[in-house]
Amino acid sequence: NPKLKIFSLNSNPALAKEIADEVGVPLGKISVTRFSDGEVQVNIEESIRGCDVFIVQSTSSPVNENLMELLIMIDAVKRASARTVNVVLPYYGYARQDRKARAREPITAKLVANLLETAGANRVIVLDLHAPQIQGFFDILIDHLMGVPILSDYFLEKNIDPSEVVIVSPDHGGVTRARKMADRLKAPIAIIDKRRPRPNVAEVMNIVGNVEGKTAILIDDIIDTAGTITIAANALIESGAKEVYACCTHPVLSGPAIDRIDQSKIKELVITNSINLPEDKSSPKIVTLSVAKLLADAIVRVFEEKSVSTLFD
Amino acid sequence: NPKLKIFSLNSNPALAKEIADEVGVPLGKISVTRFSDGEVQVNIEESIRGCDVFIVQSTSSPVNENLMELLIMIDAVKRASARTVNVVLPYYGYARQDRKARAREPITAKLVANLLETAGANRVIVLDLHAPQIQGFFDILIDHLMGVPILSDYFLEKNIDPSEVVIVSPDHGGVTRARKMADRLKAPIAIIDKRRPRPNVAEVMNIVGNVEGKTAILIDDIIDTAGTITIAANALIESGAKEVYACCTHPVLSGPAIDRIDQSKIKELVITNSINLPEDKSSPKIVTLSVAKLLADAIVRVFEEKSVSTLFD
Ligand SMILES: Nc1ncnc2c1ncn2[C@@H]1O[C@H](COP(=O)(O)O)[C@@H](O)[C@H]1O
Ligand SMILES: Nc1ncnc2c1ncn2[C@@H]1O[C@H](COP(=O)(O)O)[C@@H](O)[C@H]1O
Repeated sequence: NPKLKIFSLNSNPALAKEIADEVGVPLGKISVTRFSDGEVQVNIEESIRGCDVFIVQSTSSPVNENLMELLIMIDAVKRASARTVNVVLPYYGYARQDRKARAREPITAKLVANLLETAGANRVIVLDLHAPQIQGFFDILIDHLMGVPILSDYFLEKNIDPSEVVIVSPDHGGVTRARKMADRLKAPIAIIDKRRPRPNVAEVMNIVGNVEGKTAILIDDIIDTAGTITIAANALIESGAKEVYACCTHPVLSGPAIDRIDQSKIKELVITNSINLPEDKSSPKIVTLSVAKLLADAIVRVFEEKSVSTLFD
Repeated sequence: NPKLKIFSLNSNPALAKEIADEVGVPLGKISVTRFSDGEVQVNIEESIRGCDVFIVQSTSSPVNENLMELLIMIDAVKRASARTVNVVLPYYGYARQDRKARAREPITAKLVANLLETAGANRVIVLDLHAPQIQGFFDILIDHLMGVPILSDYFLEKNIDPSEVVIVSPDHGGVTRARKMADRLKAPIAIIDKRRPRPNVAEVMNIVGNVEGKTAILIDDIIDTAGTITIAANALIESGAKEVYACCTHPVLSGPAIDRIDQSKIKELVITNSINLPEDKSSPKIVTLSVAKLLADAIVRVFEEKSVSTLFD
């Protein structure tokens, strides 16, 4: 009988532990360190012969370190005669480089998919890809889970009258996501509509939809430097919104993000633990929800060869 | 007519510039930076359509950053319609992880070969691989250049009487390399013969060959923490060697290396610029030779579709 093994690399050990607890297995014994010159050293300290192995690693910052750890671990697991090598990527780094927006750009999101396959992954489980098309970058099996239900449930528990809520997409690209959340909260949507009237002329920000007197909930997949989201929040308040919440699945929160959030009109920023935030990236405004149960359910269903699609929304 | 273009990434820009000067072309215009969250951003700032592109990058420390820069650049060059994508790796990182020495280890040297191919490299030019067998890890074209002639020429210019010189391999694995240098200097060889008489008993160091009264030249491919080489140098002096030089192609020099060399009996450490040493890794004992001409010659011969093998020793 094949056995289920879960291993954590270094990017998000707290989430990996939570996932293993949910599944009801101990984390696999492993040491992932560095040689004196900085090269990754992987030691798998228990037999995995014939096992279905799940490797949990977010390719968040430091993205290149975390990605190389993952590729080297996949190689080691494959060569150690595992039955299947499954990669759980709560956060898929480089997802925004998913097309040539300018001449001579790389398409790093596709490169990463190819690297994971080449290393020997049989399947990947991902959460809220920046673009759902990235699923098609893989020739191996991919399960694409959604963070919207987890974020929505948090706001549902606040028991705000749906007629007083509006779900807001901070840009045109995020309207589908906002619509999904609005369905769950039975609320209408609004869109922050930025456009540049002519080249070299300042952007004009316009809010499409009614926000006056309402509790506005901004939703995005990734919040990185938090420029877009904090400008949007302030614009919503100026347009008469009563209060503004913001939420996202992946809290990249690089550079000035925390300062911007603290200084913005955002009342609360709701994130998930898909990315493990370092100690110094904290704010009293941040509320963190866990994706452990969602990922654990997906792992168990994959292991038991049941459909994962019921977890998709 | 195809055109030759040379691009430098961030690991060794000084060597890349020297190579381009030797070839007689300007370095290609490029910017390789980081987004706010640490992801690699590559901008190739000139057309390379139909060109034979040579990318110069050592995968030295920080190895994972340098390797990811290289893979992403290969992807960008390929997608920009270059005729061929050629990778010049003066130092090939992860080369020591070239076999499973223990159970469940990765073979990262092979993984890296696969990653370079997957990204889209058509050919690699490398210098002194830790094991020549790594050539067989590639299905694409590979040219394997040797540092021994450059190191040997330096010692030949010292005009020491060959009968007063002995070339020393610091371990069993390096005897072939020592033999090659000895041929050029018309000198005999010696070997540092370490062995463990029984498990859990201290190693015994024995010198095979005559070193008394001689100028000993220790040669290795990589000097990393410099433990082996400095112990060997001191043992040679104790065995009556007049003076000890050490040389290597790849100065990894991590951790305590510089201190150990400074405190050792080594008179001079001769290295090459295959790895760009940071400012703080310097010692009055270090002499640096350039591999720029060797790599430039290889690039020109590949571009002109001439045999590179004349450069192999
Ligand atoms: N790590 C990153 N940080 C900021 N911008 C990025 C990053 N990766 C890619 N991009 C850029 O973001 C754009 C895609 O963003 P989006 O329009 O939100 O899909 C691309 O044109 C990229 O040039
Ligand atoms: N970056 C590294 N630093 C130190 N040791 C390493 C490194 N990479 C691999 N190794 C180990 O070095 C051994 C190979 O060294 P060698 O016997 O000189 O070929 C392998 O068994 C590895 O476990």
